[in-house]
Amino acid sequence: MIEKERKTNGYYSARGPARRSSSLNRDSSSRTRRPMPAGRTRTASSPESTEQVDAVRFTPLGGLGEVGRNMAYLEYNDEILIIDMGLQFPEEETPGIDFIIPNITSLEEKKDKIKGVVLTHAHYDHIGAVPYLVGKLGNPPIYTSKLTKAIIEKRQVEFTNAPKLNVIPIKEGDKIKLGDSFDLEFFGMSHTIPDNVGIIIKTPVGNLVHFSDFRIDYDENGEPHGLDDLKRAGKMGISALMIDSTNSEESGHSISERVVEKNIEELFKKAEGRIILATFSSMLTRIAEIIKIADRLGRRVVINGRSMKDNVEIAQNLGYMKVRKGLIIPAEEINKHKDNEILVITTGAQGESTAGLMRIINGDNRNIQIKQGDTMIFSSSVIPGNERSVQALKDNLSRQGAIVYHSKIIDIHASGHAPKEDLRLAMKLINPKFVIPIHGYYFMRASNAQNAVDAGVPRENVLLMDNGQVAFINQEKAFISQETVPAFYVMVDGLGVGDVQEVVLRDRRVLAQEGMLVIIVTLDRQTGQVLKNPDIISRGFIYLKESQEILSDIRRRIRGIVSRIPRRDQDPDYLKTVFRDQIGQFIYTKTYRRPMILPVVIEV
Amino acid sequence: MIEKERKTNGYYSARGPARRSSSLNRDSSSRTRRPMPAGRTRTASSPESTEQVDAVRFTPLGGLGEVGRNMAYLEYNDEILIIDMGLQFPEEETPGIDFIIPNITSLEEKKDKIKGVVLTHAHYDHIGAVPYLVGKLGNPPIYTSKLTKAIIEKRQVEFTNAPKLNVIPIKEGDKIKLGDSFDLEFFGMSHTIPDNVGIIIKTPVGNLVHFSDFRIDYDENGEPHGLDDLKRAGKMGISALMIDSTNSEESGHSISERVVEKNIEELFKKAEGRIILATFSSMLTRIAEIIKIADRLGRRVVINGRSMKDNVEIAQNLGYMKVRKGLIIPAEEINKHKDNEILVITTGAQGESTAGLMRIINGDNRNIQIKQGDTMIFSSSVIPGNERSVQALKDNLSRQGAIVYHSKIIDIHASGHAPKEDLRLAMKLINPKFVIPIHGYYFMRASNAQNAVDAGVPRENVLLMDNGQVAFINQEKAFISQETVPAFYVMVDGLGVGDVQEVVLRDRRVLAQEGMLVIIVTLDRQTGQVLKNPDIISRGFIYLKESQEILSDIRRRIRGIVSRIPRRDQDPDYLKTVFRDQIGQFIYTKTYRRPMILPVVIEV
Repeated sequence: MIEKERKTNGYYSARGPARRSSSLNRDSSSRTRRPMPAGRTRTASSPESTEQVDAVRFTPLGGLGEVGRNMAYLEYNDEILIIDMGLQFPEEETPGIDFIIPNITSLEEKKDKIKGVVLTHAHYDHIGAVPYLVGKLGNPPIYTSKLTKAIIEKRQVEFTNAPKLNVIPIKEGDKIKLGDSFDLEFFGMSHTIPDNVGIIIKTPVGNLVHFSDFRIDYDENGEPHGLDDLKRAGKMGISALMIDSTNSEESGHSISERVVEKNIEELFKKAEGRIILATFSSMLTRIAEIIKIADRLGRRVVINGRSMKDNVEIAQNLGYMKVRKGLIIPAEEINKHKDNEILVITTGAQGESTAGLMRIINGDNRNIQIKQGDTMIFSSSVIPGNERSVQALKDNLSRQGAIVYHSKIIDIHASGHAPKEDLRLAMKLINPKFVIPIHGYYFMRASNAQNAVDAGVPRENVLLMDNGQVAFINQEKAFISQETVPAFYVMVDGLGVGDVQEVVLRDRRVLAQEGMLVIIVTLDRQTGQVLKNPDIISRGFIYLKESQEILSDIRRRIRGIVSRIPRRDQDPDYLKTVFRDQIGQFIYTKTYRRPMILPVVIEV
Repeated sequence: MIEKERKTNGYYSARGPARRSSSLNRDSSSRTRRPMPAGRTRTASSPESTEQVDAVRFTPLGGLGEVGRNMAYLEYNDEILIIDMGLQFPEEETPGIDFIIPNITSLEEKKDKIKGVVLTHAHYDHIGAVPYLVGKLGNPPIYTSKLTKAIIEKRQVEFTNAPKLNVIPIKEGDKIKLGDSFDLEFFGMSHTIPDNVGIIIKTPVGNLVHFSDFRIDYDENGEPHGLDDLKRAGKMGISALMIDSTNSEESGHSISERVVEKNIEELFKKAEGRIILATFSSMLTRIAEIIKIADRLGRRVVINGRSMKDNVEIAQNLGYMKVRKGLIIPAEEINKHKDNEILVITTGAQGESTAGLMRIINGDNRNIQIKQGDTMIFSSSVIPGNERSVQALKDNLSRQGAIVYHSKIIDIHASGHAPKEDLRLAMKLINPKFVIPIHGYYFMRASNAQNAVDAGVPRENVLLMDNGQVAFINQEKAFISQETVPAFYVMVDGLGVGDVQEVVLRDRRVLAQEGMLVIIVTLDRQTGQVLKNPDIISRGFIYLKESQEILSDIRRRIRGIVSRIPRRDQDPDYLKTVFRDQIGQFIYTKTYRRPMILPVVIEV
């Protein structure tokens, strides 16, 4: 018996309307139930139970509620297949955090059942959590393409306590069998990095397709190509399709990478001086093309930025980039060539303070500085939250005399994610019975749900899941069950994994807004008198050197408070509470600010 | 003799290439020279001096280096005219600040010369600093239109210590004389609020035009209208034009407000349930039109959000909005009408946590909650930095069953700022000899400089100024002098104006990233022994309750440090330095984090 619990906008959704809540506590462990063995009968008294469903269980651990941290797993008959292990970059709500990784609590307790991990492609939102998680999961075999293999293996050695990876290389067209439950078939998908694979997953109870990030490529006549695998999968009879939603709100088709390359080539031809081009080091497909253009137009190439150097080197070694000897020159030789014979490809297009471009602009790069007449090309989008630092980049480059082009001025960047029309096209070709939008915030996935409906999928066959929910899928049916597994944030900060908690972040947010004030009061244990002038330390509140008046006021009030409390009532905790309240109130009245007040009472 | 000091890209610019620096210290007072009396001979030994120039001095105090905080003044013959007094909203670099206001140090010392202030329109980036500054400037007469007058007067009463304003209402077409130096003529400009004026300023040494924020209106046939005043000004022979740069990078013409209104009307017709429309309360022109559409389509209007209510009330009282009696209903009566007879207009389109829309979404509004089938329209742009909170709004609305439209999906918002083609058109009509791009970051103003060149202004006649620089302008010449006046940030935080300094903000940024640790060590004054277990307080670092091990390590290390230092060397300041260094280093090794360490040494 299959039951849906509740619908929102007619889609499946196992939870009702949500109020606004920080994504930090959206999935609180208190609501977590112990997951049931997959594909087994589940006996439960509620009418929403999943009795006698022979189904694959699909559990996303991340990526549904954010852009990044992509990870999910499939279970059937006590066998588990994991897809991707990505990380998420920190947000406003998580100050000081390095990044956020998926919560694998539900997998750790059944790690013996893990038959393998498939990594779709080498972007950090799909592979970045590997060094943190793979050891805890018993270092299962990883199936991925050659390029991804090289990139994760290079990164793994930086983590001294992480195990050596057990990677089995696969390529487009390969078929492998994982346990008795999963027959996998890999197919190539176009994205901004080579060696990107989608997966056809055949199980005893139905066929699934799990896309990677993708876009559809168009040739110069506007004809799509590379769709044969999707058509072939469509003929297999697909139950559920898991599909990327990142650009599901954008209308139309993908901008062709050919158009981007043509525009970049035009800018190259116009440039009279040096060209500095900034892009993401992960956009290896485009970087390879740009190097070819530079070669055609007689420019030597300087690669700047560590990740750019690493990635270009790996891509060259594996044959994804064929570069004529002598074309790439070391930065030290930049001045041996004329200005119009130089192209610098650099990281730092987002204005990251430590990245390649910022060092050039700040004059911290020994060999490369900006000069009058340089042409600066930003072949990238601005990631939300980076607007201010990218603005500062453009301002500074312009002040230093560079001619600046960015993708708002001319199409010199194309997203790697399919917009509406391409999503609909892909769904029509796969022709799945059910669609599960993955990758992105709720609104993006809801928009993609509408794309599915527009592509002919019945509205009730679209599953709008959240991280930590469990969907049951077979050839006939698919629904979101009542079960949930823990999927709340695991934060990485310095060497610590998971030890930064919401309370710490809340303190950081308060400290950032109003600063703090430590009040140290030394009391005579015998008399209860204030022994010396109370020490006051403040940071981020007001500049105390110039606020002597308020300081003396606070000290006077502290003495007053102590003198009004009889010795027998001078419990340190009570005193602290009184200081916090009364001094806090006094400061608020005087300044309209609420710094964090930290009283310390010392009895000697 | 007129000299330019240095050129960047061929434009006038009194400073050379700048390295990246925080906008906080871009204009440090150390570089400030005492300004010379305006229009007088200036004797200086440097070749860049401004000897014997009979010229108007133009000094922007804000708005050139940011979007917001617009304020500038003109000086001639010991007479001063101020244009606008805006505020700037805080940025990432200024955590916890309420907002930033212009620095008026250079005006305070010569406030007796101020003949008047002109406020171009009632947006906060042009009027918001009035209550903070007007008293310090001797409460000079303010010339502004009726609507702006009403809005600033209403706000002024909230500031109990600020003087009653001395406002002289003016309107389009009015001419006034200020002192012997300035003959002003006001003309209407289209923007998103009514009563927006540009100024023709005739002086004994040349005619200037200072634009307000503006766009060009097009009728349904795509013909521009309202350009007569610009044509007329063009015939007067204009020396310098100060012109808005906010949208100077955008190509093409303004989206017509007619198109926006038509699209909104279409959405209204399609909506089967209630409509909730969120926009800026300052967009009074559009709000007036939307209320008309609601009336036409038989919907009652509920106004939600304090600033929305205030502004609509003022606009009604002054006759800018004609609203049939009974059309606007109180929120309490929302359920007396059918869903398809309701329109809610609300503030909070940016996801501001205390604004109207957020309260509705969170269920904190007694009368209005989101329900299945509501149509939600965002008639606004997303201000950079607010992407995450707007995403959360859309996610939550969508989860609660609303159908969401925003301006990325359909043209239901038009900017109030002219893009490239319209900027060029305006410059051609005014036909000024010199152009000074104002309003916006450097790159925006540099883009606008290029627009001026495209409109036929010689490149060397475009002045790319910075805040605090002084331009000399007469009918023949215009150049940026070597003088500067203080223009660095003045921050408003709580009740304090200007008492939050860079050191405080730096502390807040550190606290937000890594948190802090207070170490309190009590020493026996005689023996130099640690008297009791050192107190450790930490916030925003790690959750100490779960980190007992590192706490004991730190305490052990403190005792060790003290025991190794002979009593005679136990100077408290020295001890603090040693604690800060050694405990800081220990924590970094253990955690890879660098919390702020605040040691306290108490001798008893």
